[in-house]
Amino acid sequence: MEQEFTSTPLETAVRELSRLPGVGRKTALRLALHLLRRPEDEAVALGNAIISLRKEICYCRECHNISESELCPICASPRRDHSTICVVETVRDVMSVEATGQYNGVYHVLGGVISPMDGVGPEVLEIDSLVERVGKGDVKEVILALGATMEGDTTNFYIYRRLGRVAGLKITQLARGMAIGNELEYTDEITLGRSLLQRTPFMV
Amino acid sequence: MEQEFTSTPLETAVRELSRLPGVGRKTALRLALHLLRRPEDEAVALGNAIISLRKEICYCRECHNISESELCPICASPRRDHSTICVVETVRDVMSVEATGQYNGVYHVLGGVISPMDGVGPEVLEIDSLVERVGKGDVKEVILALGATMEGDTTNFYIYRRLGRVAGLKITQLARGMAIGNELEYTDEITLGRSLLQRTPFMV
Repeated sequence: MEQEFTSTPLETAVRELSRLPGVGRKTALRLALHLLRRPEDEAVALGNAIISLRKEICYCRECHNISESELCPICASPRRDHSTICVVETVRDVMSVEATGQYNGVYHVLGGVISPMDGVGPEVLEIDSLVERVGKGDVKEVILALGATMEGDTTNFYIYRRLGRVAGLKITQLARGMAIGNELEYTDEITLGRSLLQRTPFMV
Repeated sequence: MEQEFTSTPLETAVRELSRLPGVGRKTALRLALHLLRRPEDEAVALGNAIISLRKEICYCRECHNISESELCPICASPRRDHSTICVVETVRDVMSVEATGQYNGVYHVLGGVISPMDGVGPEVLEIDSLVERVGKGDVKEVILALGATMEGDTTNFYIYRRLGRVAGLKITQLARGMAIGNELEYTDEITLGRSLLQRTPFMV
């Protein structure tokens, strides 16, 4: 009996693909065999896109969002309001806020939230750089836009403690309440309670 | 309000990744952002592996298995039994049979099974090439190793009709029965019925 059938390029592709999150060996093999059935252009385009992605994208020195230059397009834009900083956890959250079309300020990407259970302390997050940025003056409002989780709340509180003494700085957070389109009976009691406490004047 | 935040390399990577089967835009974005957080080497290795995969792998002219040369290592090996051909549906099935370590013959990859519902007729499969291969003589046995499905059975029957008249050729198929380790009560009645009908002498 000979050795098991192997092909070096296939084995290499399967090994590299299976390093992706949520991709095991079986899925990696399925993806590799799919690529083999597609036109060569398509596989080459995917391979080059992955290489360019990593080679051409860096992080903005100001807000730590992804960027193709030292300053990201948002930080570099004179049309954005640079006196309002929206603090988010990840790059994806920047995209989520941008997609609302409701925000014209700038961002600050923390790179995570404080989570002692996972060994994430404030020192590994971009909190010092936020404090420094605010310390330069010109910042009127910091919007804490972290997830409505215990870790998000802890991080909000930590940032509030670090920035609370800056004179004239407004610190706000995202409104918590019922999601648009939700029924009362399917809203959890904590959210519903918060919605009641923070009720707003009725507008037509 | 400015345009939504975009980055060309990121958009390109997300578009190309989302062409993979089972990968939507959200997953593609998650994968791209994961690659951005990893060392540059890792992304470059993945990109190059995908390009090499498609550039270096072709199909064996004899058995239609994937190969890095005109003849795959199995067809080229003098140590394999070239008088026995195991007919399988896909390249992955070759790997499954090889992994058993129980087979020393050669293969023939059909590229699918007959499925009129999906518009797959015998003419798009590698059946003519199988008949031609058997017609050259020297083949003593064809093992039909397709899935135990209606389409597999149809294809088995079609191939049997095409090869049945070849003198001295033995046509066999995989044994159907209880999976090793299965309990009687969890085995479906068709499989159990088949296992009863095709019972084999008890061996110690």
